[in-house]
Amino acid sequence: MLQDGRRPGEAAISTSIEFYFDFISPFGFFAARRIDALAAKYGRRVDWRPFNLRTVAVATGFDRPMIAYPIKGDYFRRDVPRLARLHGVEPWNVADIRGINAAAAGRAFYWAADRSPEAARQLALRVYHALYCEAMDACVPEWLAAEIGRLGLDADAYRDSIGDPDQKARYKRITEEAMEKGVFGSPYIIVDGEPFWGSDRLWMVEKWLSDGGW
Amino acid sequence: MLQDGRRPGEAAISTSIEFYFDFISPFGFFAARRIDALAAKYGRRVDWRPFNLRTVAVATGFDRPMIAYPIKGDYFRRDVPRLARLHGVEPWNVADIRGINAAAAGRAFYWAADRSPEAARQLALRVYHALYCEAMDACVPEWLAAEIGRLGLDADAYRDSIGDPDQKARYKRITEEAMEKGVFGSPYIIVDGEPFWGSDRLWMVEKWLSDGGW
Repeated sequence: MLQDGRRPGEAAISTSIEFYFDFISPFGFFAARRIDALAAKYGRRVDWRPFNLRTVAVATGFDRPMIAYPIKGDYFRRDVPRLARLHGVEPWNVADIRGINAAAAGRAFYWAADRSPEAARQLALRVYHALYCEAMDACVPEWLAAEIGRLGLDADAYRDSIGDPDQKARYKRITEEAMEKGVFGSPYIIVDGEPFWGSDRLWMVEKWLSDGGW
Repeated sequence: MLQDGRRPGEAAISTSIEFYFDFISPFGFFAARRIDALAAKYGRRVDWRPFNLRTVAVATGFDRPMIAYPIKGDYFRRDVPRLARLHGVEPWNVADIRGINAAAAGRAFYWAADRSPEAARQLALRVYHALYCEAMDACVPEWLAAEIGRLGLDADAYRDSIGDPDQKARYKRITEEAMEKGVFGSPYIIVDGEPFWGSDRLWMVEKWLSDGGW
């Protein structure tokens, strides 16, 4: 029996897929490139939800970014570029992710999403591409404003919104909601209440969608 | 260029695949069920190497088992049974893994491997099955001795070997070697010097084997 009361095989209720990610996570990028097509194949939409992974990591008992753990961090540094190559994400040319203010991009995302969810989605993909393929710090107001303008939204209105306490509170609230839902990493995908962590698990998301649960 | 000097596409040197795992790791079990068939498909053999995951975890900055971290632990408790179901490992009926002495099974494995690598491999699979499908603590001398006898080896000679300082030192040395090679989790698979962490990455191991590196 599924969480919404259906039995496996019954027609799926077309709820949105919750896609939690942070721009500091390259695994979030790998999933971001594929999640919409995967969802569309099964008649689903995706709610993109950038959140603050560092806040969540600390709250769940990890005192530093995974990349900063000895040995495991070395593995990630080797693993991420080869994953990029295997997924055809080239060139792989990464900005100094430790130095970026991903929250700024997250807040810009939600500002854009209020005006056009599709523009916000494009913005997120552009931020990811700039950070990981163009070695560019895309989490600064000038870059974000220019991109927002290019996406057909009002760049000046966005600039005026920067520093708005409501925007900060919203990003914080979404991060807190993520934690309440059990999110501890990026990407973290929730379908019909079922959680899937990691870009390695898109096959499992697809199996859930195709089977109508299990 | 690959680590052994070949270019991708050149005939693979048929080195063994190093398969590091710990019995406390159900992900090690999922990989153990599939690794030999995968290797054989590409003319490779597998060196099975149980090691002490707890020792490695502490050395790499994790102060407790993953299952004991808040939120992430909850996810694993939900994830592992569904993975078992999807992989057809049924029934899923787990012993209290926190209470087991996996080192005893590891040492028994190496004792058996000196006499018959195939018997040792069967022993490892039997230990895993007992722990995760029969809710049985398979890491105790009586159980291990009986199983060793069933596999055609000398159960009394095994019993006499228990507590042998050389056996303990060997298991410790293999764990230390694992750390020197960068092993930080289970399963951890090394092919031609290329590392792969997790049962989620067997697809990548296969890609390496089929492409002759990348």
